[in-house]
Amino acid sequence: MIKLDHENVTPLYKQLKDIIKQKIIDGEFRPGQKIPSELQLSKMYNVSRITVRNAITELVDEDLLIKKQGKGTFVSAPKIEDNVLEDISFSLTCKINKVKPGSKIIKNVIKDANERDIAELNLHENDKVVYIKRIRYADDEPVILEHNFFPSKYAFLLNEDLENQSLYEILNEKYGIARAKSKRTIEITTASEEEASLLAISKGEPLLLHREIVYDKNNNPIHRTKQLIIGDKFKFVVP
Amino acid sequence: MIKLDHENVTPLYKQLKDIIKQKIIDGEFRPGQKIPSELQLSKMYNVSRITVRNAITELVDEDLLIKKQGKGTFVSAPKIEDNVLEDISFSLTCKINKVKPGSKIIKNVIKDANERDIAELNLHENDKVVYIKRIRYADDEPVILEHNFFPSKYAFLLNEDLENQSLYEILNEKYGIARAKSKRTIEITTASEEEASLLAISKGEPLLLHREIVYDKNNNPIHRTKQLIIGDKFKFVVP
Repeated sequence: MIKLDHENVTPLYKQLKDIIKQKIIDGEFRPGQKIPSELQLSKMYNVSRITVRNAITELVDEDLLIKKQGKGTFVSAPKIEDNVLEDISFSLTCKINKVKPGSKIIKNVIKDANERDIAELNLHENDKVVYIKRIRYADDEPVILEHNFFPSKYAFLLNEDLENQSLYEILNEKYGIARAKSKRTIEITTASEEEASLLAISKGEPLLLHREIVYDKNNNPIHRTKQLIIGDKFKFVVP
Repeated sequence: MIKLDHENVTPLYKQLKDIIKQKIIDGEFRPGQKIPSELQLSKMYNVSRITVRNAITELVDEDLLIKKQGKGTFVSAPKIEDNVLEDISFSLTCKINKVKPGSKIIKNVIKDANERDIAELNLHENDKVVYIKRIRYADDEPVILEHNFFPSKYAFLLNEDLENQSLYEILNEKYGIARAKSKRTIEITTASEEEASLLAISKGEPLLLHREIVYDKNNNPIHRTKQLIIGDKFKFVVP
């Protein structure tokens, strides 16, 4: 165990910060791992809890640690970064982030358009929509619960293999339809019991709520999407 | 009390949905108000809980209602919309959203730059930063807890009245410094005890974590910001 040097001009909190950082770099503290508590660290290094807190606050600010309320302090794991200015699919985002994309279809039906469908997809009263609900995986772990709504002319999608192929690759290669731009909103929500169970998280956990309307190059809406995203695993970037 | 018409061709869930929507439009259910539970609604209108759930699911999808895990279902209150493509301050965002901006300074000091400061503000080892921590209000309610870090040449800000004047108005009018562009990331975090107390929310409540590096027209970083934003009151928009 490295000792802190109380005679050194470097403040104690900085010495402790460097020790923790080195443990992360060395892999002694691994991504996702819980580190010792404030009390434990203060005993281990014979410093005050304020000193420990200052060291941890800095490491949280530098994104090396994450505090989870009521659970402790953890080593940050890398998040999938989604560039909101580049209009690309989740499959492609995964490839850029060097993780393996996957999908599981939960529901796949024709249903009545609601008012949001009508407004956002330029539909009419009594029109139908193609509703596809799926879980999106990165390296086989659930990241996103996704609700997609397409105009009924996209009913052909119900016959496609959306679990093993990228939706946009199918649209593009087979039907010549490509996403050109989108409108998005980013908010927070919490997981219902059903959502939590599909995403393998706890009920009430916070989620990013990402809504998107995707358009083709002629400004025709292709679909609208509501994504519930596990915050531990994902961040939006506006570069 | 309006009764549902079981003989009508309009499905029961749609009839119930229209009734709830009308109560919101009429102001009988007001923004932020909790509506009766699924069980209460199913008794009131003599329909199954599935019917009630379908009606509520649609109204949540249309953004008229919000479900809060463990608390119930509430009428949506309008959120401040921040357009991430327009590079403007919180004060201006408030004006566009027709709410009154406000600020309270919590801390206002010179301190050592950490590694994030050095990397993001183009500083050197042993440089100092101006650290300004403040609460941002909309119509006198706390919305954002904000940590600002400026290069030490901005130390003049410590003598300015940042509670009653917009930071960027001061920078612009007195010093000719204007924000030209920024880099942002949007993630989720949860409130610590101290953060919760400053924002008048419960410990552990989910927050949007918004980091921004703001640059002037010559690409020099003006400051970096870490904002913790109450999700009930704020959404990001990418139009």
